[in-house]
Amino acid sequence: MSLKNREIHLARRPDGLPKPDDFRLVETEVPDIADGQVLIRQLYMSVDPAMRPRLTVGYELDQVMAGGALGRVERSKNPDFAEGDLVRNQLGFREYAVSDGRGLSKLAPEPGIPLTAYMSVLGGTGFTAYGGLLEIGGLKDGEQVFVSTAAGAVGSVAAQIAKIKGCYVIGSTGSAEKAAWLRDEAGLDAVINYKETPIRQGLKAAAPKGVDVYFDNVGGDHLDAALASMNTLGRVAVCGMISGYNNPGARTPVYNLSNIIYGRMNLRGFVATDFMHLRPQFETDMRQWLREGKIKWRETVLDGIAEAPHAMVGLMQGENIGKMLVKLSEEEVPA
Amino acid sequence: MSLKNREIHLARRPDGLPKPDDFRLVETEVPDIADGQVLIRQLYMSVDPAMRPRLTVGYELDQVMAGGALGRVERSKNPDFAEGDLVRNQLGFREYAVSDGRGLSKLAPEPGIPLTAYMSVLGGTGFTAYGGLLEIGGLKDGEQVFVSTAAGAVGSVAAQIAKIKGCYVIGSTGSAEKAAWLRDEAGLDAVINYKETPIRQGLKAAAPKGVDVYFDNVGGDHLDAALASMNTLGRVAVCGMISGYNNPGARTPVYNLSNIIYGRMNLRGFVATDFMHLRPQFETDMRQWLREGKIKWRETVLDGIAEAPHAMVGLMQGENIGKMLVKLSEEEVPA
Repeated sequence: MSLKNREIHLARRPDGLPKPDDFRLVETEVPDIADGQVLIRQLYMSVDPAMRPRLTVGYELDQVMAGGALGRVERSKNPDFAEGDLVRNQLGFREYAVSDGRGLSKLAPEPGIPLTAYMSVLGGTGFTAYGGLLEIGGLKDGEQVFVSTAAGAVGSVAAQIAKIKGCYVIGSTGSAEKAAWLRDEAGLDAVINYKETPIRQGLKAAAPKGVDVYFDNVGGDHLDAALASMNTLGRVAVCGMISGYNNPGARTPVYNLSNIIYGRMNLRGFVATDFMHLRPQFETDMRQWLREGKIKWRETVLDGIAEAPHAMVGLMQGENIGKMLVKLSEEEVPA
Repeated sequence: MSLKNREIHLARRPDGLPKPDDFRLVETEVPDIADGQVLIRQLYMSVDPAMRPRLTVGYELDQVMAGGALGRVERSKNPDFAEGDLVRNQLGFREYAVSDGRGLSKLAPEPGIPLTAYMSVLGGTGFTAYGGLLEIGGLKDGEQVFVSTAAGAVGSVAAQIAKIKGCYVIGSTGSAEKAAWLRDEAGLDAVINYKETPIRQGLKAAAPKGVDVYFDNVGGDHLDAALASMNTLGRVAVCGMISGYNNPGARTPVYNLSNIIYGRMNLRGFVATDFMHLRPQFETDMRQWLREGKIKWRETVLDGIAEAPHAMVGLMQGENIGKMLVKLSEEEVPA
């Protein structure tokens, strides 16, 4: 058969901002599958901010990287999977993947919902926003909410869920185009372009009633700004701290932490596996909201696995609106 | 009658570390009391780290300061209080106080327990340690616990409660004398003198099994050290951040906050009024522990109201072991 496969290896650990040549495109052959295995042809892979720390500690050098992906079963010697099945998996950064079925999750797509939605609003990204806001942030209807990187894959969903819950929602973002989308399409109440207005000053002006819940994707100056505006018993759901990801030691200082004492605030870090019990309710709610047009989403899709390093670099520079994806093969290619 | 009263005013807001002449001793006359009022002769007043931020924002200039105190009712025109009653109150920094009874709490002292204990282990200090550790920190028996300023009024109680709960307890302190007391008297498992060993390095060595609960009185480098040693699902009960109190803006940077994401940690600021429902159980538990000799405590008592500014300055420089008190009058003086 001799099918060609291409995959992305980590060539060296980035010093600061990742560069395309920190990665290497490697061509291999797709192996035959053994009994119990399936061969997956990947359709889309996800590129996430959380991958950045793993470039420093986590991913192995000169090995194929890993990440969320959606593929179709191309061949199966596993009775649980049929050829043509759509499977969500963690075997991104490669065009073809072999699996014994563990960690694969079959997807039954719904008419009218594009496949990529299962990688974003209906995928781990949307679920992270949902649980982070409602469970970790303990959001109550009508509260004052601040979401950083609000035009990003997670932030844009968190901000719109807060709107659905009747909250006053402030978002921060780094470009005029994204700010316009957040205001005009996603329907946020206030948007701060932190490249035009210092975030602390912008947030003070945008939050006359303070902030009850801050959904943090940034850390550093954004977290300091939030801490300076938080109300008593405020909650910070810490999803990510991208501001530090490209600094030495992956950290930026935070100065206003002592505010949490008299404000009796709660800062809580989380990953989506902390609230897996919410997954069924999330699926129900989100499909409903999508049908009702209450959640808008954007995707930035680069074409072909050779673009994966650029997707990673671009993500770190805020070049995406919404979810950053790489298309790995045409769905039209016969399974 | 013309009783002389002396009180401490805030003369100017400290620039950094408070100095004695930031305060002023003012002599006044004790006023007559009206119907419904009581005159309190103060016996002891409390000097607490939490007063430092109030010197910057909170206390008014050229006015008498306020703080926890224990006094005896000297004269009463209030049917709820009799002459000779012991009353806990928030009218410290003066020798005599007039009150309409609001905010006074009558104290029935127990034989064998010195009056000062009601200002420390059995007072707000002990209660802060109790609730902060058990309720905010969610301490579970047998966990790994780190307490900063462990020889202080709150820290020393928190550390010993953790020992009573079967935990492995690490304390930090700033002198060899305090370290010896913590090790030999209070029975901690490990003690770090942060003036001899950098706190991060000291904690790494002292906590081979990591830290599940950090009771934070310091912030800054101590919090960073804790964050670098915390276990997954670790909790930080943030009682105070004394490291920043004497810096401009009352803040010190914290660098390792991003650790809370993958560690899914919880940082929670609190004040004792957050868990008033625990007060009866605290009184029962703490009296029991004192009778059993399970809680040791120390006090640093300065004599006379003129010493109150020195008590404040000394507290900020770690000159106290345990609770810092100022004795305001001799109990022997006839009521």
